[in-house]
Amino acid sequence: MNWFTALAQPTGVALIGASDTQGKAGRLLMDNLANGCDGGELRVFPINPRKAEILGQTTYPSVAAIGSDVDLAVILLPAARVADAIADCGRAGVATAIVISGGFSEVGPDGAAHERAMLDAAAAHGVRVIGPNCFGFVNCVTGLNASISAATPHAGGISIVTQSGAYGMSAVTRSQRDHIGFAKVISLGNCADVNETDVLAALGDDGETRVVCMLLESIQGGRHFFEVLSQTTARKPVVVLKTGKSSSGQRAAQSHTAALSGDVAVLEAGLRQAGAHVVDDGDTLFEVAHSLLLQPAASGRRVGIISNSGGVGVELTDLLEREGMLVPELSAGLQEQLRALIPAHGSSANPIDITTDWSRFAQMYRSLIDALLASDEVDVILPVLLHRSAQMPEVIDAVVAAGECQGESAPDKSIHACWVAPASADEHRLRVVDSGIPCHVGPHRTATVIARTLRRERGKISSLPVPVGPGTGEADGPGAPDASDGQEGWADAHTVYRFLDEAGFPAAPWARVSELEGGVAHAERCGYPVVIKALRKDLLHKSDAGAVVLNIRDAESLRSTFRALEQKFQTRDFLVQKQIEGGIELVIGARRDPQLGPVIVAGLGGTLIELFRDVAIRLAPVTAAEALQMLDELRFSALLDGYRGSPAVQRAACAELIAAVSRWFAERPALRELDFNPVIASGTTFTIVDARIRTSAQAPS
Amino acid sequence: MNWFTALAQPTGVALIGASDTQGKAGRLLMDNLANGCDGGELRVFPINPRKAEILGQTTYPSVAAIGSDVDLAVILLPAARVADAIADCGRAGVATAIVISGGFSEVGPDGAAHERAMLDAAAAHGVRVIGPNCFGFVNCVTGLNASISAATPHAGGISIVTQSGAYGMSAVTRSQRDHIGFAKVISLGNCADVNETDVLAALGDDGETRVVCMLLESIQGGRHFFEVLSQTTARKPVVVLKTGKSSSGQRAAQSHTAALSGDVAVLEAGLRQAGAHVVDDGDTLFEVAHSLLLQPAASGRRVGIISNSGGVGVELTDLLEREGMLVPELSAGLQEQLRALIPAHGSSANPIDITTDWSRFAQMYRSLIDALLASDEVDVILPVLLHRSAQMPEVIDAVVAAGECQGESAPDKSIHACWVAPASADEHRLRVVDSGIPCHVGPHRTATVIARTLRRERGKISSLPVPVGPGTGEADGPGAPDASDGQEGWADAHTVYRFLDEAGFPAAPWARVSELEGGVAHAERCGYPVVIKALRKDLLHKSDAGAVVLNIRDAESLRSTFRALEQKFQTRDFLVQKQIEGGIELVIGARRDPQLGPVIVAGLGGTLIELFRDVAIRLAPVTAAEALQMLDELRFSALLDGYRGSPAVQRAACAELIAAVSRWFAERPALRELDFNPVIASGTTFTIVDARIRTSAQAPS
Repeated sequence: MNWFTALAQPTGVALIGASDTQGKAGRLLMDNLANGCDGGELRVFPINPRKAEILGQTTYPSVAAIGSDVDLAVILLPAARVADAIADCGRAGVATAIVISGGFSEVGPDGAAHERAMLDAAAAHGVRVIGPNCFGFVNCVTGLNASISAATPHAGGISIVTQSGAYGMSAVTRSQRDHIGFAKVISLGNCADVNETDVLAALGDDGETRVVCMLLESIQGGRHFFEVLSQTTARKPVVVLKTGKSSSGQRAAQSHTAALSGDVAVLEAGLRQAGAHVVDDGDTLFEVAHSLLLQPAASGRRVGIISNSGGVGVELTDLLEREGMLVPELSAGLQEQLRALIPAHGSSANPIDITTDWSRFAQMYRSLIDALLASDEVDVILPVLLHRSAQMPEVIDAVVAAGECQGESAPDKSIHACWVAPASADEHRLRVVDSGIPCHVGPHRTATVIARTLRRERGKISSLPVPVGPGTGEADGPGAPDASDGQEGWADAHTVYRFLDEAGFPAAPWARVSELEGGVAHAERCGYPVVIKALRKDLLHKSDAGAVVLNIRDAESLRSTFRALEQKFQTRDFLVQKQIEGGIELVIGARRDPQLGPVIVAGLGGTLIELFRDVAIRLAPVTAAEALQMLDELRFSALLDGYRGSPAVQRAACAELIAAVSRWFAERPALRELDFNPVIASGTTFTIVDARIRTSAQAPS
Repeated sequence: MNWFTALAQPTGVALIGASDTQGKAGRLLMDNLANGCDGGELRVFPINPRKAEILGQTTYPSVAAIGSDVDLAVILLPAARVADAIADCGRAGVATAIVISGGFSEVGPDGAAHERAMLDAAAAHGVRVIGPNCFGFVNCVTGLNASISAATPHAGGISIVTQSGAYGMSAVTRSQRDHIGFAKVISLGNCADVNETDVLAALGDDGETRVVCMLLESIQGGRHFFEVLSQTTARKPVVVLKTGKSSSGQRAAQSHTAALSGDVAVLEAGLRQAGAHVVDDGDTLFEVAHSLLLQPAASGRRVGIISNSGGVGVELTDLLEREGMLVPELSAGLQEQLRALIPAHGSSANPIDITTDWSRFAQMYRSLIDALLASDEVDVILPVLLHRSAQMPEVIDAVVAAGECQGESAPDKSIHACWVAPASADEHRLRVVDSGIPCHVGPHRTATVIARTLRRERGKISSLPVPVGPGTGEADGPGAPDASDGQEGWADAHTVYRFLDEAGFPAAPWARVSELEGGVAHAERCGYPVVIKALRKDLLHKSDAGAVVLNIRDAESLRSTFRALEQKFQTRDFLVQKQIEGGIELVIGARRDPQLGPVIVAGLGGTLIELFRDVAIRLAPVTAAEALQMLDELRFSALLDGYRGSPAVQRAACAELIAAVSRWFAERPALRELDFNPVIASGTTFTIVDARIRTSAQAPS
């Protein structure tokens, strides 16, 4: 039996470590599993070699002793005894075991040894393991509660995958307080075997799961996770909270690209690229998932606000715009239509202010929502239910009724409500929620959640074999270019420029020269000013060493500089290169992450690159269309449009170059890192002025 | 009687527009005022010429007819009749009238006329007016409820001033739900007479008000408001939400300074400078105020987290660090001490993870809070009350007991709790709150609120006469420098540089020359390269017109350029100036805001100034210490420290220059705008390379 079917729809469950003592986890699980059996087909078998019977149920010494079909086991034993229990499960044909017990790798080396033994037993006996050190599993639709949760969340369409047990518990709380309905709650604990990628793939296929919600402390699946995520978001919304952003160290940076594409930045970029809704905290995780269960994702940034308080309308506008949404002034035509619906001293501009004319509230809310649904001027409609309006049943009726018509008239628009009212009126809020309109508590939460329901263009995540270790390159595609120097794998300057020429990338015209007049001849061909760089294997940081001289404007200067460098560095190996002036300095970089494979970075370059840190990141390769989005999301993107007299950069041409570099890099597994900085951009012309490339140490030469 | 005493402690209140009809505001106010009289000295007099008695109380046709001392009137009449009512109040000796009715300037020109008539009557009769179009006033300590609120918030130390009625209502809701206690709730409506500045000054002196909380849609008091705010924050915390950020238009920009110091940016900078805690939404407004009522402001950014869920600890760390706080790893010594208090597989690093060892929760929370209070490694201590721990009364007891010892042992540290638990446990949350520890619901709100309790260095806001109109300059201080050209008030280039020399500001060495050899002589004196600028009154944008030539490196080039410009622009008026190379480009700018007076701006300059928008703003003048803070808060502040080979800028010297410019500008009321960009900075050397100054049109010449 498939491990996920065994988990979600078992016919028999063994509870290993069952107990009848109140306050023990073995008793809590007995009760939870028994509740889930009420009237169903599920059979629960307590396992405890020291008891014949627990809570009136026959107890078995081992799973193998049951002699009946058991698909799922729940294990509550000291860590040292879990491997044997897994073996017992395997012998009895159990497909999946949930190990709730702690004491494994999370507590140190001894625990890690127990975890390895457990995994060995699981592999040997064909058992898949959830956990260890986890909260358990709940199928809220069937009522199966194989968790330490005190209750089962209400049934609904959201499945949550969490590496934090606390959020398994929160599902119960949120389902009770906010009527959020769950399909499955899966806590992964240490992710020793089944990981977030496995579960995501299973939930993508699961008919009861309409929205997936993930709280991830780590991503075990590497690049494969993002591939699966991208496939899943094509079918249903996935909302992700990745924690551990601040504590995660940046890798030691050997290049700008590495410094700008730290692990956290790449993970977040990959999540967005794969089409996930990315959030920053657990409350927002639940609320965005619930919103996407009830309503379509926001199809655009434009929000229409309907309020009976000008003050709250303005506050919401500020908060929404801070989150990147828009509250546009409505057209004159629409405003004229709306003015017929509201009091003379109301405002039809947006936020729409219906004033305090209580007697007309219900009718105004209904007709204004309908009018906005029928217009093409907003994507999200946001009635504010505020104190008095929130407490009038007829206003609630009107909002609910308007919501019911929404699907027919405007399937692409979404309705959300903002709730500012006393707790005593909470049943009204829940009526709105139950009717299918998310009802957020307070302006702050409203703006935070709505902004994160925004539908994004989903980029494709190419399936690539990862991790790609050193020396594995040759087998997977074209090899690395010839990297003839060894130090840290960074290729010689002239080697790098040869790669670029071969790849067809636009490097500044260069020549490797060993005698003076060859350099002068090159300079005369490409035109002054030129740059001269002294080459020597041990000169890693040429500029710092004074081995690079800029601004050489005539043959005379070139000759004297050549001689001076020759003297100083005792070398006859030089690079003479045309110096490019004017234009905007960009960076195009790439690196191969051990877990995530090739990553591409593009943004503002030059010497201030690490100060401004204005780059966009994607898992590579990217298409030109995706590269165009990367340029659009730069903070200082306006610089490309011809800022203060600089020539405008043609974005399409720039995107083509980024895409080409990303493909070239992705296809050559022996390339480890690539750093084109600056790339001088002017109109449709791009010139790589400085380039570094690092290859695997074992790259073929 | 003082208007505020009449408002807060009246002995007699007239209700003009009293009614006994259920559902009418006149009846609601009758009930609210009657409730406030229970057992007190306060007498309420219903005014209604058509009734002899309302709810058993003698009713009077006018206030004057009462014949007894009345200090306060509440007016509920159609707008057209309010002016007469105010006159009646004045004749009867009423000091303060609250006009709750709408229909005034908020509804258009007719209403504005009623508002003017009302103000005329108020001025003529010596009555101060709160409103119109407002929610009213509540003194929560005495029980006086002169508002349309359905209930009176619980008594406590927070006074709220709001221009939005909805937030008057929210005070009731929040006091019930979260046990937030209020002193006074004052709704200002249209602010026609009494404005936020008047109320702030009164609350600064009010002994019952320990924290002031303001929701402002506009700031009527101009610079005076900031002066009062600065005085008030020296005595008690003030928390401010300024709404209307997104809708407020930026003024048409004639200079970089104006473009970078839009109204909203200046208001927010001024609020912070004056020492206010600035928040972005109403929920945070209440929660920060409540936190500052219960605990000292955070004396630093370091937070110590104590949690029984690693996951929530990591989430909180991410959220706090995003808000600018720190969750530092504790020292080895302190960790050793903490490890003795927690289970072996817990974490002492911070977040401190006490794991799921339930039986020891109470003892661990207590001893860990005590240990952090005794250490000097954190400023804020944050226990997380999570599901099970939140539901254990002994854990709540332990946290409360630790909090009670805090004042003695660590008066500068603050304790906050983060609450992640079902609503059914809410009485535990309120026990924590009632004991004096703010208990925030969920990690997101916890991080948002704690970050905004951070204590700030308060800058002084100098008292200056504002607004300073055109031509009023002479009376108030030294006049504008001689601005000999008229166009938009921008002074000629040579005039500007003469101002700078007179003021002792370091301009690039310049000379105004009318014949060639004078220019060459100047260039030889100051050294090449030089810049030459052709001067002509109609050449407003010299660079665009080609009237500025850079990079002149010898006398020959200077001569040929001189002749070419002479020919092209038909002028013999030139500025020859040393060209400064190297260093970092800064901007120092100032403008005189019609409401707020002089404003100083400093930050990154050069041609990309409006793209990066990295400037700090203050109301001028500033001290060198404040200017140093301005440099520290620049986003790209690291640039000043010698980024990538540029020489470091001495911040103290830079701050002295900014302070000197701010004083010079502030003391010369005829100066309207000043724009030094770029100022080239290198080490302790600052050179103003381009400068523009605008003076009042009527400035003396």
